[in-house]
Amino acid sequence: MLAFLLSDGGPRLVRDYPQPEPGAGYVRVRTIAAGICNTDLELARGYMGFRGVLGHEFVGEALEGRLAGRRVVGGINFGCGRCDACERGLARHCSTRRVLGILGADGALAEELVIPERNLHEVPNAVSNTAAVFAEPVAAACEILDQIGSVRGQRVLVVGDGKLGPLVAQVLARDGGDVSLEGHHLETLEWLADAGVHFAHPRGNGAAFDVVVEATGSPAGLARAIEACVPRGTLVLKTTIAGSHQVDLAPIVINELTVVGSRCGRLESALERLADARVNVEPLVSRRFELREVEQAFAAAAERGTRKVLVEVP
Amino acid sequence: MLAFLLSDGGPRLVRDYPQPEPGAGYVRVRTIAAGICNTDLELARGYMGFRGVLGHEFVGEALEGRLAGRRVVGGINFGCGRCDACERGLARHCSTRRVLGILGADGALAEELVIPERNLHEVPNAVSNTAAVFAEPVAAACEILDQIGSVRGQRVLVVGDGKLGPLVAQVLARDGGDVSLEGHHLETLEWLADAGVHFAHPRGNGAAFDVVVEATGSPAGLARAIEACVPRGTLVLKTTIAGSHQVDLAPIVINELTVVGSRCGRLESALERLADARVNVEPLVSRRFELREVEQAFAAAAERGTRKVLVEVP
Repeated sequence: MLAFLLSDGGPRLVRDYPQPEPGAGYVRVRTIAAGICNTDLELARGYMGFRGVLGHEFVGEALEGRLAGRRVVGGINFGCGRCDACERGLARHCSTRRVLGILGADGALAEELVIPERNLHEVPNAVSNTAAVFAEPVAAACEILDQIGSVRGQRVLVVGDGKLGPLVAQVLARDGGDVSLEGHHLETLEWLADAGVHFAHPRGNGAAFDVVVEATGSPAGLARAIEACVPRGTLVLKTTIAGSHQVDLAPIVINELTVVGSRCGRLESALERLADARVNVEPLVSRRFELREVEQAFAAAAERGTRKVLVEVP
Repeated sequence: MLAFLLSDGGPRLVRDYPQPEPGAGYVRVRTIAAGICNTDLELARGYMGFRGVLGHEFVGEALEGRLAGRRVVGGINFGCGRCDACERGLARHCSTRRVLGILGADGALAEELVIPERNLHEVPNAVSNTAAVFAEPVAAACEILDQIGSVRGQRVLVVGDGKLGPLVAQVLARDGGDVSLEGHHLETLEWLADAGVHFAHPRGNGAAFDVVVEATGSPAGLARAIEACVPRGTLVLKTTIAGSHQVDLAPIVINELTVVGSRCGRLESALERLADARVNVEPLVSRRFELREVEQAFAAAAERGTRKVLVEVP
């Protein structure tokens, strides 16, 4: 089958990748569409040392199991199902987990994937295929509320208007936060005003935010986020960056910030928000490609100012 | 008067430093003894760009005001008294604050200092002069509990057995935490067993701690602290480091750690603990000098394995 494989030579399309074989508890899913996110770009640069098929944002059709024939999205963390973390519903923190397209498990940028059946969620009719691809990153945005509680009435800054930032801004604004979004490509995001999101000009606001979300994945973005946070405020780190970076952590101590690392979230929360249009995602699609064009799609995703690139499997 | 002055040429003893003049609301205090902490060493290396008399851990005798003639310790943050932060009792986060011996205010390594009268606390009779010098760092240790709540029943690792780590370990063990202290100079800390503190051998414990306190002030200590923290655990940053450092922050996101920057605390909490001997500090004094020997004292404080160096004013 067609698959977008990351190997020592870098990522490339292969035409004869072996069809995946589901183990016990796993089911096959035909990919309908998949998204490319910054983590994929980081993986291609060496993050996590991943080798295998890329892709962890997807909507597909289950080919077997109780959801056979239905449209599905899937939780990307494959926990052991037996450890403390798994028993607390935190498979994403299982120490022996595999992660779809990220750690020890082939991903969704292929004609088919295999996934634990318990990870699947049916996509409501009200959610389009395009919107369903965003279930994973919207869940990641919702995770912030699960971790720090409601931001109602708080001054919130989202640093980074790329792929994830506009989703985070919408989720936090809908929760009642007074949300500003800061970035270099705001001109195509005017529709976010409908969700109550304001635009902030970079570095124009000083240390004036109770909650700051770092969604650039860059050391400069992190420095800006630290500087924008009021004393005793909360800084949410929403992106992973490959490798070490020069960071001045003294302001975290001096201002007694609480820094919250935040990763994957619950797909249920995301599907609800997508179904009732509390989160609008379609305008975030910059370009669409077919799977056979995935190499061009990946290059496009890396361009500055590009937001979501979708890869469709016809 | 004698004063230990940090100027562009580095820190040195000067013999004819002008006697300080108290402004409105300030009182003069005669220094009885002062401690040297790692922040002082960092300041001498350029941290904060401070110029002036060093020293922010002290016990003295108030020379005027309602506590005239009494032994006192003092809060080191001089807030404006009028802003939001000051009104919430958080003078240490006043944006126009000065900080004794750290930021815009001469410190305690001198025969006299001036300090806002409202910052002073009388030292109970049960607290020796030596113990009183530890009020500031013990308050800094107590601040952790004010920020993250009780650690009762939690597995706690304190990384760093230098000046601050043993104080933090005692405070958290007395709070009911299952506390391990990790460092390279544990052989002289056996008495900490009385407080219920265990010893951990560096890097011998994996990611097994619910709460990890970084008290080394080194990038290596921070890396170790990140690695020792369980997923969704709490990492407390207790030390400031001058300048930027190479730090891999990805594990904070992947493991969804909460990182809490923690600085000064309430002196009342510290004095209570010192008065009823819940915190034992005298064995942490490595060496004592007189103020005229302060340059030797400062050099001694920078040696590996040295804990608290006291400077006494006879």
